[in-house]
Amino acid sequence: MSDVLESLWQTIQDRKRSAPPGSYTASLFAAGLPRIAQKVGEEAVETAIAALSEPDERVIYEMADLIYHCQVLLAAKGLSWSDLEKELAARFK
Amino acid sequence: MSDVLESLWQTIQDRKRSAPPGSYTASLFAAGLPRIAQKVGEEAVETAIAALSEPDERVIYEMADLIYHCQVLLAAKGLSWSDLEKELAARFK
Amino acid sequence: MSDVLESLWQTIQDRKRSAPPGSYTASLFAAGLPRIAQKVGEEAVETAIAALSEPDERVIYEMADLIYHCQVLLAAKGLSWSDLEKELAARFK
Amino acid sequence: MSDVLESLWQTIQDRKRSAPPGSYTASLFAAGLPRIAQKVGEEAVETAIAALSEPDERVIYEMADLIYHCQVLLAAKGLSWSDLEKELAARFK
Repeated sequence: MSDVLESLWQTIQDRKRSAPPGSYTASLFAAGLPRIAQKVGEEAVETAIAALSEPDERVIYEMADLIYHCQVLLAAKGLSWSDLEKELAARFK
Repeated sequence: MSDVLESLWQTIQDRKRSAPPGSYTASLFAAGLPRIAQKVGEEAVETAIAALSEPDERVIYEMADLIYHCQVLLAAKGLSWSDLEKELAARFK
Repeated sequence: MSDVLESLWQTIQDRKRSAPPGSYTASLFAAGLPRIAQKVGEEAVETAIAALSEPDERVIYEMADLIYHCQVLLAAKGLSWSDLEKELAARFK
Repeated sequence: MSDVLESLWQTIQDRKRSAPPGSYTASLFAAGLPRIAQKVGEEAVETAIAALSEPDERVIYEMADLIYHCQVLLAAKGLSWSDLEKELAARFK
């Protein structure tokens, strides 16, 4: 994993464990899997629309939201970003 | 970037440049941005549904599809995965 | 319900009951609710992309797919298009 | 068109013309097509998630949102619900 994705992953794991008040990430874990899955779908729709109608920085912004919610989804399922990278490595080596 | 994502990114860049016949990635670039944006949205829907109703390996499989199509979208826009990591780093440092 | 939506609804109900071989609608009921829900999400993504990048007839085509899959979803849940119209009537009267 | 969908359609047309302050529908037309297309995608994701994890009344609620935003999208494109019903009639007669 890259330093950035690793750091994001550690932060998400920490929020899952400690659930600090006011944390958006903690609120997602509290809301539960359907809400997190919904966010993954919605952020991808926003990314797709931005790609067709908004400046590059919006595309990056929405895709960053999407990747973050993907990591939250993995954490909520007890999976890891490493599982994902293993799958990608198996396909594209 | 991780070795895996970097390797995937280099493969996608190569397919964009050389457009080898029979390459799915090359066919996406040929189909154009709306088609690629659509795939990002659809793969996220599949990831979300899998998270609620399918075994873990399907979630990983669909999310790998999603990440791959995100990289293709970035490449189609002339953006990079590094741009994305910079955005994530700025938010979560 | 309009004649067209009513007729579509009756056809879907019939396919659900009789499950004729080769019927796409029957294959959706056989595949189950997650598959049907996924199709609703995907057809909406296609509708949204078409609205931004394709001719009007493609928008209509994709939205027709979306409405059809919405009716199939209602039928799969044991709900009806009338339930939907009641909700819309309550909001917009 | 059913009385309910016809009535909803007339309301949307009226909001498009008169753009009354405080109208959500008018705010969608002001935001423009990409925003409206995004809402169609997002409401479908919410409908799909609700179908897998929420009570029936939530499925109906989210699908009503979806149908409403579909009508707004048609109106924004200068298309009509009748165009959609014609397409459905041609397929399923």
